Amino acid sequence: MNIYDVSQQAGVSIATVSRVMNGNPNVSEKTKQKVLDVMKEIGYTPNVFARGLGLNTMKTIGIMCADSSDPFLANAVYYLEQNLRKSGYDSFLCCTGYELHNKQKYLKLLLSKRVDAIVMVGSSFLESNKKDNAYIIEAAKEVPIMLINGYLNHSNIYCTLCDDHQAVYDIVNRLIKENRKHILYLYHSKSYSGLQKLNGYKDAIHANDLPLEDGLMQLCTNNMYETKDQLLHLYQNGLKFDAVVAAEDVLAIGSLKFAKAAGLKIPEDICVIGYNNSILATCCDPELTSIDNHVETLCITTINTLMRVLGGHDVPNKTTISNDLILRDTTNFR
Amino acid sequence: MNIYDVSQQAGVSIATVSRVMNGNPNVSEKTKQKVLDVMKEIGYTPNVFARGLGLNTMKTIGIMCADSSDPFLANAVYYLEQNLRKSGYDSFLCCTGYELHNKQKYLKLLLSKRVDAIVMVGSSFLESNKKDNAYIIEAAKEVPIMLINGYLNHSNIYCTLCDDHQAVYDIVNRLIKENRKHILYLYHSKSYSGLQKLNGYKDAIHANDLPLEDGLMQLCTNNMYETKDQLLHLYQNGLKFDAVVAAEDVLAIGSLKFAKAAGLKIPEDICVIGYNNSILATCCDPELTSIDNHVETLCITTINTLMRVLGGHDVPNKTTISNDLILRDTTNFR
Repeated sequence: MNIYDVSQQAGVSIATVSRVMNGNPNVSEKTKQKVLDVMKEIGYTPNVFARGLGLNTMKTIGIMCADSSDPFLANAVYYLEQNLRKSGYDSFLCCTGYELHNKQKYLKLLLSKRVDAIVMVGSSFLESNKKDNAYIIEAAKEVPIMLINGYLNHSNIYCTLCDDHQAVYDIVNRLIKENRKHILYLYHSKSYSGLQKLNGYKDAIHANDLPLEDGLMQLCTNNMYETKDQLLHLYQNGLKFDAVVAAEDVLAIGSLKFAKAAGLKIPEDICVIGYNNSILATCCDPELTSIDNHVETLCITTINTLMRVLGGHDVPNKTTISNDLILRDTTNFR
Repeated sequence: MNIYDVSQQAGVSIATVSRVMNGNPNVSEKTKQKVLDVMKEIGYTPNVFARGLGLNTMKTIGIMCADSSDPFLANAVYYLEQNLRKSGYDSFLCCTGYELHNKQKYLKLLLSKRVDAIVMVGSSFLESNKKDNAYIIEAAKEVPIMLINGYLNHSNIYCTLCDDHQAVYDIVNRLIKENRKHILYLYHSKSYSGLQKLNGYKDAIHANDLPLEDGLMQLCTNNMYETKDQLLHLYQNGLKFDAVVAAEDVLAIGSLKFAKAAGLKIPEDICVIGYNNSILATCCDPELTSIDNHVETLCITTINTLMRVLGGHDVPNKTTISNDLILRDTTNFR
């Protein structure tokens, strides 16, 4: 028996149950009574209830990320920690890797440590086989689950995303308007956000009545030297391209190394656009034009949403953050 | 009453107490009896004992790092997680920031979650005021404490370090032999390892009978553009230098940006050496010669040591790992 059952049986939202348990006055007397009756009937004495009475909360949030050595995820974890601390919460981070059984194990472990909520960072937590997301939905019956850059439409799951589809669509569209007609797209992940980006590319190509060429969509590893070699091989075999849009900055930097090796001028012969606007984008020479997906805003929004959820407020299931293009030396847009 | 008290009162090492509790046969009957007598006498029924019986262990290790967005720390956390998992342990990470009271709070929090040991990554956990390290020594009475890149000589604290002093000493010495006589040293941290590196620089200058110039030891922020501006300002005010040794790769990349702005050739006019051999060292152009402090080896060694400690073996208090110089395009050593 959990908060989810109470909400189902009382026919009210989880937020309403949470409000009743937190003594929030913003609930009608009738609704409040209905919820309390159900709780009594099914013998529900939840952690969350005790928490509302200040008895049982550790004021600790669990954070899950696949790999802390990924610069985007590492930054996200940093901003989440900072903002949780400002809100009076401690946090535990679990680096789960990419295998489903490890993600499941860590989620259980965090729940056993009685965290107040769980933040899952990065779209790698959503499996392509939807049945495999059952472990997240199950956990959401116990505590609020916050997803960053992933979307799962279910009660007590709250998603904050950057609009990756739009960002890639916009840049590809802009390149075409600037007369770049052979745009190479590089990606290395087929995660939720990875597919959003890829679809942004495809949709922009379609919208401009250009042919969608398989050779211009290249799956890479996230090793910059392997990307360089892959592009050199394609180039030497006659693939023509006058722009590179990369789903990660590291792939864009591989492209810069390719251009140097091939004797191509940037941005005249080939312009290059990265994604994430990470520290890598400013380390390279020429410095990289990159799409900034506002990881800090993403994290602040997630924590603000979480605080509202824990306070028993009604909160939308999905919040979308827009992106910005940061222009540097690998493009020459008019 | 804890394992430390038992070892004190029985006049044996903590490792011996641990061996007795783990039923390790490698203890004399006499010693075993003495330890068991003391435990009975002081009414010691420790977590660790229950753990030895397989009753109480969560097989979970706490990891503390100051800031997961630092590439060196992020990599270390990644390798620790990987190797703990291989050894059958889960891990919790706390990003503590740099303030003492937050470090203390997180250490307590991890202990309250009954972790089997704590790994502290990075020398920022050792305070310059030695009294402030009492919280670590106190925690070591409950569980083994593993320090990475920090050294504290106390029972149940195990340190794995890279020899930062030697690494900087060697590179400065080599630069002088190559006839670079005005070596600029850039650093941004005065942590234990930060001071080791700085002393390596000073000692190499002394050993070669060169004058130690204050202007050639520059404290920087860890922002590459600020480093660039700082060097430009020094250069325009007449400071002469023909080599830069940086305590972090990001400072070395700031130096590359300075050289480009000042119209200096690398490595002819100025050679540049970074530290950590992070991904940043290969993003830049020219690619950066950098000291590799073997973060993976450091982490593997730490976890191997920890497993021996948890198994009740005698383990040295300090293990030192050597460094390597990775030559790339910012030096032209003969």
